[in-house]
Amino acid sequence: MDLEDKYFKNISKRERTIFEGAITMGALFHQFIGTPVSIETVEVLEQAIKDSMELQPCINEVEVKIDREVLEEVKNEYNYISLTGEMLDVKVVSEYEGHQASIRMKFIEELQYPLMYVETVE
Amino acid sequence: MDLEDKYFKNISKRERTIFEGAITMGALFHQFIGTPVSIETVEVLEQAIKDSMELQPCINEVEVKIDREVLEEVKNEYNYISLTGEMLDVKVVSEYEGHQASIRMKFIEELQYPLMYVETVE
Amino acid sequence: MDLEDKYFKNISKRERTIFEGAITMGALFHQFIGTPVSIETVEVLEQAIKDSMELQPCINEVEVKIDREVLEEVKNEYNYISLTGEMLDVKVVSEYEGHQASIRMKFIEELQYPLMYVETVE
Amino acid sequence: MDLEDKYFKNISKRERTIFEGAITMGALFHQFIGTPVSIETVEVLEQAIKDSMELQPCINEVEVKIDREVLEEVKNEYNYISLTGEMLDVKVVSEYEGHQASIRMKFIEELQYPLMYVETVE
Repeated sequence: MDLEDKYFKNISKRERTIFEGAITMGALFHQFIGTPVSIETVEVLEQAIKDSMELQPCINEVEVKIDREVLEEVKNEYNYISLTGEMLDVKVVSEYEGHQASIRMKFIEELQYPLMYVETVE
Repeated sequence: MDLEDKYFKNISKRERTIFEGAITMGALFHQFIGTPVSIETVEVLEQAIKDSMELQPCINEVEVKIDREVLEEVKNEYNYISLTGEMLDVKVVSEYEGHQASIRMKFIEELQYPLMYVETVE
Repeated sequence: MDLEDKYFKNISKRERTIFEGAITMGALFHQFIGTPVSIETVEVLEQAIKDSMELQPCINEVEVKIDREVLEEVKNEYNYISLTGEMLDVKVVSEYEGHQASIRMKFIEELQYPLMYVETVE
Repeated sequence: MDLEDKYFKNISKRERTIFEGAITMGALFHQFIGTPVSIETVEVLEQAIKDSMELQPCINEVEVKIDREVLEEVKNEYNYISLTGEMLDVKVVSEYEGHQASIRMKFIEELQYPLMYVETVE
């Protein structure tokens, strides 16, 4: 089946690129928020998030950085916390037929909100 | 802060509309997949998914239909199952500055995949 | 199949009651953390969490309270936040063959941790 | 603070061991169900699940096996699927003050259900 003709004929190739990147960013946040994480496990968690989300359609690369400072300052007796949006800095690069979009999520202090936005698209 | 100037100047208003709808669709799937659901609880779950996801930026309406047939046929002794993508039919309507996009997710038999696509955008 | 004989012969009925309540508490936390929530949607979300988790084996009742104060103080421009463990106060009542356990989760200031513990068991 | 005196005085050390193992099993299922996974990413995902869940209180070891056969048979054009309970075989070993419990989850054909049960406890 020609997916593009059937399901994506309403949008341009550039819009498709943005669309797929945005889906993956929303997915990433809501799949992994809540995961237990510590300074010892942060690297393998970042790698698993990256590898899992790079499977999604049109996703070329995912970069995930979890805030080490927060992890080093954990003061409860269990030495780990649940992953939150404040701790995440993520870049999702999507590609489709010559177009590329870089979608970013990071916590914006002025907004008090983990904003998802389009860094570049061409 | 003028968010649009700072974070969304690379994309058109129409692209912003698609972007926000796509984020919410990815988020919805990965937040709620796995939730225990039965024919008795399906309505309140649909309502909670709808109300939660309508909070997200630029989301005007969310329609969620969970497959009743699957729920009626549950044959394990616990009478419930975990929500899967195959059971979901979702429409997310996003709006931004005069533009409107309708994003759909449903399980496509030929693809054996819960596809997310753009039904209409104007 | 006699489940008890095959899979639970190693534990007492009282232990089975604790076991099932504990599973549901862990499940509830990790299913719903991250869900968008506001003062307008909090009631339906509480109801959906309750109804979903009461489906699990041996669960008699689930009470969910999400902190309204936190929701009323949300200061970002979107008027909602992602559900966190700090905002949750949950009681799960499990029952099995004459035994009843009440499992509680709440955020303990001294621990800086959303502790799950056994309030009562008989 | 003496946690045991304050929050766990109602249960025996053996029961505490079962309690903590059960929480982690429920948590694991509902945190990771829905994650995109393929034959290429399955190992790192298993490792991240293991490392994350071993952080939880009283958890000594977690073994996670995701069904390779299912992954090799994926027939959609994206070559990945969302993780489901049917694909998971998990063992959680909890320890507390001389007691050890081995909690297992696997999909039981006769039940058509991913059952969580206590394999051994001493």
